[in-house]
Amino acid sequence: MRLKLTIQYDGTEYHGWQVQPGQPTVQGELERAFRELEPDGVALRAAGRTDAGVHALGQVAHACVRNERPPDVWLRALNIRLPLDIRVANVEPAGDGFHARRSATGKVYRYRICTGPYVSPFDYRYVAHAPRPHDVAAMRDAASVLVGRHDFEAFTVSDRETLTTVRDLRRLDVTESGSEISIEAEASGFLRAMVRTLAGTLLAVGDGRLEVSSVAAALEAKRREMAGPTAPARGLTLVRVDY
Amino acid sequence: MRLKLTIQYDGTEYHGWQVQPGQPTVQGELERAFRELEPDGVALRAAGRTDAGVHALGQVAHACVRNERPPDVWLRALNIRLPLDIRVANVEPAGDGFHARRSATGKVYRYRICTGPYVSPFDYRYVAHAPRPHDVAAMRDAASVLVGRHDFEAFTVSDRETLTTVRDLRRLDVTESGSEISIEAEASGFLRAMVRTLAGTLLAVGDGRLEVSSVAAALEAKRREMAGPTAPARGLTLVRVDY
Repeated sequence: MRLKLTIQYDGTEYHGWQVQPGQPTVQGELERAFRELEPDGVALRAAGRTDAGVHALGQVAHACVRNERPPDVWLRALNIRLPLDIRVANVEPAGDGFHARRSATGKVYRYRICTGPYVSPFDYRYVAHAPRPHDVAAMRDAASVLVGRHDFEAFTVSDRETLTTVRDLRRLDVTESGSEISIEAEASGFLRAMVRTLAGTLLAVGDGRLEVSSVAAALEAKRREMAGPTAPARGLTLVRVDY
Repeated sequence: MRLKLTIQYDGTEYHGWQVQPGQPTVQGELERAFRELEPDGVALRAAGRTDAGVHALGQVAHACVRNERPPDVWLRALNIRLPLDIRVANVEPAGDGFHARRSATGKVYRYRICTGPYVSPFDYRYVAHAPRPHDVAAMRDAASVLVGRHDFEAFTVSDRETLTTVRDLRRLDVTESGSEISIEAEASGFLRAMVRTLAGTLLAVGDGRLEVSSVAAALEAKRREMAGPTAPARGLTLVRVDY
């Protein structure tokens, strides 16, 4: 039977989602936990392969298993075998046609930035630190330039697996609460490092390193060096995947 | 001059507040940071010596320094030298009579318990896990028995430094939100392991291991073995110290 798993992780200690020889990865830890429960092991497929240091509140993956167990038994059996910074939050049976990546209709990522003089010891794994005043209105103006269906070649790193760099960015919201700025991005799919480049670009607009008009020009010219820097991985969380 | 420092820490990696030879402690890390800024070093005095694994949102300590620096310069200079799981959240000049422990008029601690099937990977350092249904109304009844000025000998570990085990527990609030129960305790001062024993006792009432009447009996008899177990350190946070 096919299982749909919702997975949460603190990505700090992992070299991203995808299995890599000799490196701790989230997929590697999950497949190791499955091997104790499924003699032949499983091959997990995730909605998106998060980079090293990126977190997830609602990553989704599917796996085909031979053993029939109720979902809550799978949940407990996996969580007992996983490190505490990776949790299976939900298990449900899925139809044979379900594919975590291909069936997804949308993804939401959040990027958190602390603008205060110090980062809380409870948050430093999950936020980037930019202790400067930020013009949030200008960041929102730049975000409105980026929202929509565009060629985001200036906002990704080269990746030979990608056939097209056109994506439909449905939403890019900038919110401020106390000394935290949060950027939430929603699209049917994202390019590699795209959310971190969008965040780095908005932050550059926010502290005056980049003009809103330069963001429009970078999008138009499709040149990576015209956009802002890639913001650090630790601020990024995959919030949810929609189906 | 005398400085009043407000300090936050994730206590997971530390053997508590107080300096111990060969062990990482919060006081030890802070005094090490001060030694780079004050040639003669400083002796820090905290409002309360938190145990190994206990966290703080608002620990307060005082230190006497020779160098005159504005508070925000102290804050930055210390934070640059501290590990990311310890932060100085505030520095202010204090009068010569100020003493972090003796001047305190009250302290607030919070104990967090996750009652859901799994603990979030972002929270596991800060909550205890009790994946059972809890009778929160019974926990509140037990809390109301404990509030007030009592001899809390049944709710502490023996400590020869303590002259009296009478304390005035001003408040012991039990709140529930989703799959989290939070216990907040306020008093002018607490005995060693007192909040963790109060939390362990309320949890034992919540899941039916202990009756409310047994809690009253433990308080009356002053016998540690009649109260509930000491709840794990990781769920406890020193929220604030009042002056």
